[in-house]
Amino acid sequence: MHSNLFTQINPPHRLLMGPGPINADPRVLRAMSCQLIGQYDPAMTEAMNEVMALYRKVFATENRWTLLVDGTSRAGIEAVLLSAIRPGDRVLVPVFGRFGHLLCEIARRCRAEVHTIEADWGEVFTPDQIEDAIKRVRPRLLLTVQGDTSTTMLQPLAQLGEICRRHDVLFYTDATASLGGNTLLSDDWGLDAVSAGLQKCLGGPSGSAPLTLSPRMEDAVRRRKCVEAGIRTAQHRDGEEEMIYSNYFDLGMIMDYWGPERLNHHTEATSMLFAARECARLIGEEGLERCIDRHALHGAALMAGVQGMGLSVFGDVRHKMNNVLGVVIPPGVHGEQVRKLLLEDFAIEIGTSFGPLQGKIWRIGTMGYNARKDCVMQTLSALEAVLNRLGWRTTQGAGLQAAWDQYAGGSTPCAQS
Amino acid sequence: MHSNLFTQINPPHRLLMGPGPINADPRVLRAMSCQLIGQYDPAMTEAMNEVMALYRKVFATENRWTLLVDGTSRAGIEAVLLSAIRPGDRVLVPVFGRFGHLLCEIARRCRAEVHTIEADWGEVFTPDQIEDAIKRVRPRLLLTVQGDTSTTMLQPLAQLGEICRRHDVLFYTDATASLGGNTLLSDDWGLDAVSAGLQKCLGGPSGSAPLTLSPRMEDAVRRRKCVEAGIRTAQHRDGEEEMIYSNYFDLGMIMDYWGPERLNHHTEATSMLFAARECARLIGEEGLERCIDRHALHGAALMAGVQGMGLSVFGDVRHKMNNVLGVVIPPGVHGEQVRKLLLEDFAIEIGTSFGPLQGKIWRIGTMGYNARKDCVMQTLSALEAVLNRLGWRTTQGAGLQAAWDQYAGGSTPCAQS
Repeated sequence: MHSNLFTQINPPHRLLMGPGPINADPRVLRAMSCQLIGQYDPAMTEAMNEVMALYRKVFATENRWTLLVDGTSRAGIEAVLLSAIRPGDRVLVPVFGRFGHLLCEIARRCRAEVHTIEADWGEVFTPDQIEDAIKRVRPRLLLTVQGDTSTTMLQPLAQLGEICRRHDVLFYTDATASLGGNTLLSDDWGLDAVSAGLQKCLGGPSGSAPLTLSPRMEDAVRRRKCVEAGIRTAQHRDGEEEMIYSNYFDLGMIMDYWGPERLNHHTEATSMLFAARECARLIGEEGLERCIDRHALHGAALMAGVQGMGLSVFGDVRHKMNNVLGVVIPPGVHGEQVRKLLLEDFAIEIGTSFGPLQGKIWRIGTMGYNARKDCVMQTLSALEAVLNRLGWRTTQGAGLQAAWDQYAGGSTPCAQS
Repeated sequence: MHSNLFTQINPPHRLLMGPGPINADPRVLRAMSCQLIGQYDPAMTEAMNEVMALYRKVFATENRWTLLVDGTSRAGIEAVLLSAIRPGDRVLVPVFGRFGHLLCEIARRCRAEVHTIEADWGEVFTPDQIEDAIKRVRPRLLLTVQGDTSTTMLQPLAQLGEICRRHDVLFYTDATASLGGNTLLSDDWGLDAVSAGLQKCLGGPSGSAPLTLSPRMEDAVRRRKCVEAGIRTAQHRDGEEEMIYSNYFDLGMIMDYWGPERLNHHTEATSMLFAARECARLIGEEGLERCIDRHALHGAALMAGVQGMGLSVFGDVRHKMNNVLGVVIPPGVHGEQVRKLLLEDFAIEIGTSFGPLQGKIWRIGTMGYNARKDCVMQTLSALEAVLNRLGWRTTQGAGLQAAWDQYAGGSTPCAQS
């Protein structure tokens, strides 16, 4: 079609039950349709301050520097890593899935000396394993993933902050896939930086990355301060350490933009800020604890239903994230054919897999706006129908009955920390 | 207020007549309120392909690699510079305002050897001045700003591509503030990379950066190719040159995500992509030429009105951008007081200034959705009233009459290339 003739965007209806992105809460979409205001309008700076207050609750922190990076969740990770890692710094990454590899990759681009420990996909690390590696590597930073959707595993973090403090290590976690659906206590767990995205349990679109920095991390970043020539005045001084090799991701400049100095940096992505604000506001309205419980409830019902259908669940379920489930593709079933029928005939999207799990498991998410009973029941019902269609036998309705039983009072077997 | 008690976002009505961001076209806001689809959904990849086709028209290019970077316009600049500049590369930046300094700043973060030539604020460079500097510096890249809102000047670019080819220099321009409101012919002018944002003449919100890369630039980027460990397979090979020191801004990876390989990188910011698509689609519907003419028309009317009111215009108006006007703050008038009254009592925002122009000029924009007669007339009317209120005398209605006269058939004095 000639590009001048494209019609208005009109995406097909989809129920997004993969590992994210998922359907956004309609209230978040409506927030994004608000008209814009100027970037230094008092209403805008007030909205920025409200975003900071709202995300302090979501991250369970008192950290002053709790703000948004304008980009996807990967932009949030890179902003933290580029701002914190000086070339040559040693970092330790416990890798238990694809997103651990991503941290290594980004750290390598920061010219870190990257050390890893690796767990089999489907498992997590004990605090002792991580402490042993810290003793051996003596890193400046520990870079972790809380929930890795590639394996569905949730790394326990509660004890790592104390270990990091003892060894004078800065402690970061990527909570993109876990935040809002699994317990994360930034302050209680001694985290120095946490970054996330909107498109998983927060129920928004990709494109804004909330993050929080501890005073220790702030200090590490401030030591690398640069001020742009175009707006610097006599009162500005550069920091004492090697500069951050990015302007866009320089968290020192971003703090000065979000702080009372309001130093001009990027032009805040206003519509995405409205979305981020609404995501956190809705969690505040529901209550963070109840939001996490909701993810646990529907995650458990999905798992009961899948198991009730006779399918096997992937990985160490004691450490499974609440919001995503790995389902082993049964022998004789073509995984992609199932996904195709679900998408084409039921408008339901479930996830495929990466790396060592490619072709071996599906990943089914129950998160954010889609952590709902109707989403779980529709997905189970459609999955049973598709499997039957392709010749894989189930006991009629057994999966749905098991999910109903779980809703009626089963225990929730998912890990909480 | 307790953060749990924040209400729905409800930004006040504003008419944004500053140098951007401006009010988004309501159709763009509605496009953003569409429900999401999965990132590899056929409907999503089709929307990405449509975006590429639409922006080829906007950039007046046949370049295959015409796509979006997920971040603000500054992210687009940084993606090009980080991907193109190898540490130690010589770059030349003709600086005629704040955004030239920004290019220097970002190039410095890329560890370029940065050379500048400087023009007084309010002036631009001749091709000869730039060619002389190229001969002296022998840069690998020429980094230019097409329209610098800090001075309202539009640098003529039409002859620079040929000069760059002759001296084997890669030619980039930042067209954030100019694209869609001033002529830009990427291919005809020999540009190797152009980046932009939505929040100026394109009539959208900040948060997505359209850009285009010539085959020469593609080649320069591909030589630095890296593939993430988490998703690399035996067929992937790294490039022969020093890697790009960013994962998020690695245009090689971003091309592979937008190309048929669909190599997983970030999760595309779907709502911002819908916005970007609608911005370009609306320009296609209007016609790019007519869109630029509309910017010229309303820019000329605003200038006639301001001059008719007895105010002076800043800079070399032969080289003024169509979409922003510098207005000299008259003696005895407090610039910020005028802005405050306009905002508080008329809900109209006009811009302040940076650096050497701070406190000396206001900047009034007529761009994107706000390049309209009613916006111009309301702004002139309010400005006259506020100036009178503060004791600065004008001939009653003279500014508005001059604008009407301009609309009735005056010539448009703004530069077109």
